[in-house]
Amino acid sequence: MTYCIAASTNDGLVLVSDSRTNAGIDNVSTYGKMHAFDTKSDRVIVLLCAGNLATTQAVIEQLHRDKEKDADINLNNVDCLSAAANYLGQVSLEKQSLHKNPGGQSAFDSSASFILAGQIGEEEHAAYMVYSEGNSITTSMNTPFLQIGESKYGKPVLDRFLKLDTPLNVAARCCLVSMDSTIRSNASVGAPVELLIYRKDSFSLDNYYCFQDDDEYMQGLRRQWEENLKAAFEQLPMLDKKYAVELKATL
Amino acid sequence: MTYCIAASTNDGLVLVSDSRTNAGIDNVSTYGKMHAFDTKSDRVIVLLCAGNLATTQAVIEQLHRDKEKDADINLNNVDCLSAAANYLGQVSLEKQSLHKNPGGQSAFDSSASFILAGQIGEEEHAAYMVYSEGNSITTSMNTPFLQIGESKYGKPVLDRFLKLDTPLNVAARCCLVSMDSTIRSNASVGAPVELLIYRKDSFSLDNYYCFQDDDEYMQGLRRQWEENLKAAFEQLPMLDKKYAVELKATL
Repeated sequence: MTYCIAASTNDGLVLVSDSRTNAGIDNVSTYGKMHAFDTKSDRVIVLLCAGNLATTQAVIEQLHRDKEKDADINLNNVDCLSAAANYLGQVSLEKQSLHKNPGGQSAFDSSASFILAGQIGEEEHAAYMVYSEGNSITTSMNTPFLQIGESKYGKPVLDRFLKLDTPLNVAARCCLVSMDSTIRSNASVGAPVELLIYRKDSFSLDNYYCFQDDDEYMQGLRRQWEENLKAAFEQLPMLDKKYAVELKATL
Repeated sequence: MTYCIAASTNDGLVLVSDSRTNAGIDNVSTYGKMHAFDTKSDRVIVLLCAGNLATTQAVIEQLHRDKEKDADINLNNVDCLSAAANYLGQVSLEKQSLHKNPGGQSAFDSSASFILAGQIGEEEHAAYMVYSEGNSITTSMNTPFLQIGESKYGKPVLDRFLKLDTPLNVAARCCLVSMDSTIRSNASVGAPVELLIYRKDSFSLDNYYCFQDDDEYMQGLRRQWEENLKAAFEQLPMLDKKYAVELKATL
């Protein structure tokens, strides 16, 4: 499994991804799921990937090759991120369709989903989630984040704390806490955790982090969050028995 | 959808369930999912239900009828909870199989899952999760809780705070927070929230609560948890840019 988050706030982008892949529970590997493309200087484009690893690798390679050979549509000549997302969706559909019916493996699933984020030229920075069907959605003022993969465990903390006006470093911390909760509750999501903070209009990818499980900052964050949560929980009001009512047998 | 939790701690049981059912997103109703059975005084048996409402209602009715007509196996004569769980699993399979192939409705799903909890005679109190396949599992020392339905959003808080030696009122608060996080993140889970606290060996179901959305205690709990979480989050260590490393384009 996988867990990736993209936050698109007023100040820029925060991208976070885990690195665990598995083909069956007994075949676990480590693959980064965050891919930056070496594009022209007027743009930054970063991909987060979930789903079938063969598909996502084939898609990324195709995107690179199209760019290198300057194909009719490629990441260097699309003029906006939504066009890039459409192009990615088409490439993804092509790659998935190559292995849809491998014969005999009824449980085989070649599908993959992506988050494409960045900034192109004069356009605003943005993030798009590209479904395995090739279509895509972007963020909104009320929901300034996208998730792919094992998204449920880590959603409550994003719902609560990630707003459009959240500063980038706070948004980054929020996404790391969301990732940490997911790693704690689901063995198929694991370190290293990659984090990229992109300040809008900077066209620079120099604020990047790769945290191992025993990393100093992540360990501190995890310990502190555990302690703070414990205190937060212990200070909650106790249930008073005065609220009790009668339980009726239903039939 | 549905969300139900059963905690089985040293001191007894805590059961929590929501009340939202839906047949499609545009057909939402309110049905309680916690059912107590009016059994002999040497036992308490309570059911939590998830899945197809027609199936769960048919199962509950059958359990009641078997008990009323004193069938060979019924809730009044099973001598332990695991036997009750097996019996429930069989009834569930029967009821599901009646509607497996209704013709034409390929997306139709008659499956249902249950949590059966309580105490019988000299046996320890316990909780069993009965899968739609009819088999069941119980809790363990390390995982003293069971969940059915939309379980992921609310799992991190249970993972963190619910232990075997957690006092009953703290366990109840923990389950309510887990339920509240789920209601917040998933529109298919909703109030009223039912809560039953069973102290072991009491054979009494008098510690029962039914919280509406605007209920005083639930509102206080929600507001306080939101505030405490916010403080817990704001006190986390900030990310220092000294940890940044170089992001390499992958191809």
